Amino acid sequence: MDHVFFPAFSRVAISGGTHGNELSGVHIVREMQKHNVNQMGSLSVCPILSNPRSIEVCRRYIDTDLNRCFTDALLSTPLTDSSSCELRRAHELNALLGPKGSDRAMDLVCDLHNTTSNMGLCFIIDFLDWILLHMVKYVQIKMPTAPIRVINTNVASKSLSYSVDSVAKHGFAIEVGPQPHGVLRADIYNMMKEAVDHTLDWLNKFNAGTTFEGDKVEVFVWEKSVDYPRDPETSQLTAVIHPKLQDNDFKLLQHGNPIFKTFTGETVNYEGEDLYPFFINECAYYEKRIAFHLAKKETIAFPPISVKKE
Amino acid sequence: MDHVFFPAFSRVAISGGTHGNELSGVHIVREMQKHNVNQMGSLSVCPILSNPRSIEVCRRYIDTDLNRCFTDALLSTPLTDSSSCELRRAHELNALLGPKGSDRAMDLVCDLHNTTSNMGLCFIIDFLDWILLHMVKYVQIKMPTAPIRVINTNVASKSLSYSVDSVAKHGFAIEVGPQPHGVLRADIYNMMKEAVDHTLDWLNKFNAGTTFEGDKVEVFVWEKSVDYPRDPETSQLTAVIHPKLQDNDFKLLQHGNPIFKTFTGETVNYEGEDLYPFFINECAYYEKRIAFHLAKKETIAFPPISVKKE
Repeated sequence: MDHVFFPAFSRVAISGGTHGNELSGVHIVREMQKHNVNQMGSLSVCPILSNPRSIEVCRRYIDTDLNRCFTDALLSTPLTDSSSCELRRAHELNALLGPKGSDRAMDLVCDLHNTTSNMGLCFIIDFLDWILLHMVKYVQIKMPTAPIRVINTNVASKSLSYSVDSVAKHGFAIEVGPQPHGVLRADIYNMMKEAVDHTLDWLNKFNAGTTFEGDKVEVFVWEKSVDYPRDPETSQLTAVIHPKLQDNDFKLLQHGNPIFKTFTGETVNYEGEDLYPFFINECAYYEKRIAFHLAKKETIAFPPISVKKE
Repeated sequence: MDHVFFPAFSRVAISGGTHGNELSGVHIVREMQKHNVNQMGSLSVCPILSNPRSIEVCRRYIDTDLNRCFTDALLSTPLTDSSSCELRRAHELNALLGPKGSDRAMDLVCDLHNTTSNMGLCFIIDFLDWILLHMVKYVQIKMPTAPIRVINTNVASKSLSYSVDSVAKHGFAIEVGPQPHGVLRADIYNMMKEAVDHTLDWLNKFNAGTTFEGDKVEVFVWEKSVDYPRDPETSQLTAVIHPKLQDNDFKLLQHGNPIFKTFTGETVNYEGEDLYPFFINECAYYEKRIAFHLAKKETIAFPPISVKKE
């Protein structure tokens, strides 16, 4: 593949607490703020708490999920007295870190998340962005014992991207688990912190003119979501994730494998093409009616890159 | 020890959702209600959801922790317009399951809880009640591979007991973890369900005239609590549970062992007498300023018992 040149990175934001009860990112950002981190090598760095009101009460959100508020449609919806707390904050964040799609937007936003699922550390990207794939590869090499994977949400267009990081020129989330929401574990905190540090190192190396050779990386591309079995009248769960599926994120799920165990003891098996499950039994997805997502695994090649000289 | 006779058990309540985001108990009780469980052998059984409003929003509580509302003082506080949602419910539950300390009270209340701590299955008791110790022993024998322990909260008197189960003649909590609040895991659900079933079996055997021989059991007796290191001005955490302590509930903590890791990388070591930590890094205890509890381990002998013939 042909060598590709990208502009240098100048302004980078590290955001935590987009979901107020996902504590690794909250505390990583707070520590950066406390130590007045605003310049790292060639980079201007902005550590920011995305949803301070939800952090204060240690809940995912106050009115609605902030990390679904950044579509072009929602960002262009005029605010009224009845607008949710999170839509207001999305407009503020878009002004601070964006505006989305504009030249003034942050060069990169890295948004920090936790999950109750046994997912290790994931880079979640909306598009196959060479910069981000190079960055992941670098972090994978620097953290050889950590389970580091890439998820592509497979969103149809930038305008439909709904996450806070979509306001930047290059945006991604770092998702680390398993960790209960509202809890801070040292192992999960350290894994996330290390990945953030390596990401910033990569950006500085890139800015300094390092050439990064082409390579390839495995990417899990979202295909579909599966809900829990529910009582049709009350919508209450009638089954839980089967013990053989629980904690087995990213292990191939094959036709006939058990996925749910009902409260009355029956096993529900998977029917469909072989795919890779992730976000299995994520706390926040019960209300979204998602028991787990399913992905295809693809190997994506990416070209050599380096910084475009001014 | 001399043989002791106790009256037969007639009315038993199984309560779940005292904390609305501890889902094993919520679903065990819902299943019992759905299948109209109200009689099991010689027992009248009342499955009850303690805090329906907090269950609905999947939070620990609405205004205040319901499971701290059952002291004599709070139960005799007149309700006013400004009374918390939970104090109102405590008065209702006291009328339904108590009144606490009266002859009309339930013979037994078993209250179902989850923790984010790696505690396995615990019976939490306020007093060394021979009935409850026999019951634990029975469940331990029936579930030989499960980590089943007894915690004595060491409350000074029945009138100061603050938990919902204290309204009954014999009350205890079953606490099972690790499970994130707001999540339902099959392994944790099954462990709790099995313990509840064995408890009810034991009661039926007791009522039927079985003599249970004297024995002894290990009991962890609460000694004190330890808070996280905090910033004196903001009260925000400055450290997390040390990786060597995390998940090591009930393993002896000795003078000099690491307990916290600060965000700046220093290790904080334990100073004090050797004790057993539990509820390490429980989500709901951050706001209570408890990083973990410490207990003494005692071996408690209990006498042979059987039912008092009418």
